[in-house]
Amino acid sequence: MENEPLLMIPGPVPIPQSVRSAMMRQAINHRGPEFSAAYAEIVRTLKPLFGTENELYVISGSGTAGMEAAVANFGRDRRIVSLVNGKFGSRFAEIAGRYGSATVLESTWGTPLDLAGLEAHLAEGAEVITMVHNETSAGIKNPAPAVGALARKYDALFIMDGITSIGGDLVEADRWGVDVAVVGSQKCLAAPAGLAAVSISDRAWERIAETRPYYLDLAAYRKSGKKDLMETPYTPAVPLFLALREACRLIEEEGIEQRIARHRRMADAVRAAAAAWGVDLFPELDEVHAYSNTATAMKIPAGMTDKDLRGTVKKMGIEIAGGQDHLKGKIFRIGTMGAVGAPEILATLAAVQHALRKHGFDAGDGVEAAAGVLE
Amino acid sequence: MENEPLLMIPGPVPIPQSVRSAMMRQAINHRGPEFSAAYAEIVRTLKPLFGTENELYVISGSGTAGMEAAVANFGRDRRIVSLVNGKFGSRFAEIAGRYGSATVLESTWGTPLDLAGLEAHLAEGAEVITMVHNETSAGIKNPAPAVGALARKYDALFIMDGITSIGGDLVEADRWGVDVAVVGSQKCLAAPAGLAAVSISDRAWERIAETRPYYLDLAAYRKSGKKDLMETPYTPAVPLFLALREACRLIEEEGIEQRIARHRRMADAVRAAAAAWGVDLFPELDEVHAYSNTATAMKIPAGMTDKDLRGTVKKMGIEIAGGQDHLKGKIFRIGTMGAVGAPEILATLAAVQHALRKHGFDAGDGVEAAAGVLE
Repeated sequence: MENEPLLMIPGPVPIPQSVRSAMMRQAINHRGPEFSAAYAEIVRTLKPLFGTENELYVISGSGTAGMEAAVANFGRDRRIVSLVNGKFGSRFAEIAGRYGSATVLESTWGTPLDLAGLEAHLAEGAEVITMVHNETSAGIKNPAPAVGALARKYDALFIMDGITSIGGDLVEADRWGVDVAVVGSQKCLAAPAGLAAVSISDRAWERIAETRPYYLDLAAYRKSGKKDLMETPYTPAVPLFLALREACRLIEEEGIEQRIARHRRMADAVRAAAAAWGVDLFPELDEVHAYSNTATAMKIPAGMTDKDLRGTVKKMGIEIAGGQDHLKGKIFRIGTMGAVGAPEILATLAAVQHALRKHGFDAGDGVEAAAGVLE
Repeated sequence: MENEPLLMIPGPVPIPQSVRSAMMRQAINHRGPEFSAAYAEIVRTLKPLFGTENELYVISGSGTAGMEAAVANFGRDRRIVSLVNGKFGSRFAEIAGRYGSATVLESTWGTPLDLAGLEAHLAEGAEVITMVHNETSAGIKNPAPAVGALARKYDALFIMDGITSIGGDLVEADRWGVDVAVVGSQKCLAAPAGLAAVSISDRAWERIAETRPYYLDLAAYRKSGKKDLMETPYTPAVPLFLALREACRLIEEEGIEQRIARHRRMADAVRAAAAAWGVDLFPELDEVHAYSNTATAMKIPAGMTDKDLRGTVKKMGIEIAGGQDHLKGKIFRIGTMGAVGAPEILATLAAVQHALRKHGFDAGDGVEAAAGVLE
């Protein structure tokens, strides 16, 4: 662990040594064959993770920059419906509000999205939908296929934040009817923070806004990305591209199916631990929503503070996440994304279990339950 | 040189080993004391390089993102005058055109800006000026103090791209009357590409646009930057911050005055070589414009192609820059920025001298002339 805390939060995640090493090399000209080859390799690896054959470009900016690029290029001055059941859905709605006429359909965080409300708005002419696929703030996975079907039924564009699912959970953008999907580098891809990738369907290109921002102008990315030497329109964050390329190589080595299965198993293990402890999972599901496979949100047991729980865990060199905004002090979250496996999960669960017991909660043996899943 | 070409272009520039090594460490939580300390240290070092006591924030994006942040936050729906005498001035004008009512005052690239035209527009109510301080595309340094004085006289905001001057040439934003100044990480600061820093005067804050973009919303940077633990509003490119912090430490070690003097000496050496060769410098100056001290633009002698010249230099492992856009094939450029010194300059000039002679140009001994300056 190199004396760094083990980050078991919903990103950033621990970065493999070889990925970090890739950033060490001397600066290269970003308008030349080597950069071009790295960029092309990233795109080639990411497309199947997105489940898409659409064009895909990489932006030097965080996942939020990717979300804004999607909205600014395809939602500007349009009627947008933003589905919200957590912090990042709320962020998407806020971005939408700066560009279009945005209707926010907000459910209590961690509860199902309002699909009936969505359909009503689509029937009345809404043109663009924003949705967060995997809402880490609440540990819930939203029903992308159902939303995609509604988008197609009413000929709306479907913009999906896949920042914390792509590369860790199954995403089938094309099959689900996702027009624009976004991923961030520092989540399931296990690369450093600072890059976002965006895939764009032909339907979306046909409707691109006439007035676009400059740095996040996806038409400019398209123009530069289609050159013989693939480029970005503005200077890219070169070390981050080199790191992401190495992360992509590790993903290829592992295999996509294996990677998704590993993420599921890790989340299953955490959920098994919660059940054995007697700790409640936070989300309330229906038949189309699911628990997140990359971040598990649990309620902090009564009589215990966030500091009691996470502070004790931190003393053992492990960082887990608390609740955000109004969920502060009410929930805690364990990220299971990227290049982590059974050792990190078991250590984390053992530390949490100790913290629970230390602060008076009569927790069952969650560690043993998780080991049974992970074995 | 680690088998990489020596980059003597106007950025990206060679990055010192310790700066690259700073990116190697394991991911850290970007909402914690260590990240906060790094960010604060960067800000502390950059302010004197900007010549400012204004607030300063760092954006995870290229210099272009910084330019857009300046225009989008302070120029939106205002009357903007964009001064242009090169490619980056032209880019600034294009960005301005997406946000305000932009008047472009374009001079032939490499010739003086139209200050009389500027004053006329200011007298008629123009509210915002954009100018590139150091126009690397043409090797010319624009008269920031004169433009700043006009801005103050007519109470306009002065937005200055200092991307390729700050950290390498003298910049005195506050004394010159610059309201918003921008730098990029991969130029004179000798850090990897991917970060921009923006300083903002109180006058500018008082006039911030009501409708702002999201990722580049400087009010959000201000809010997060003023917390006890200094943060960025969205996930930052953590490795690039750590690298920039180390680059700042190297700058502190060298000393600002020494650093500027080194850049001047390097540019003087290149200009001395050009004179000895009999190669013409590209810019046409008047009494307020000057040659750039971080990128020297020279005319390619008649009868020689860009490929003849730069191709031969590249065979010796050194990359110099050609002309951009309509200057392709007409000029070549040598960058003298960042962590380079006499060895890199001498090697570059020797290679260029060889290329000139090889392709039939009867060049004098520019290498010896440069050595005399550098000694």
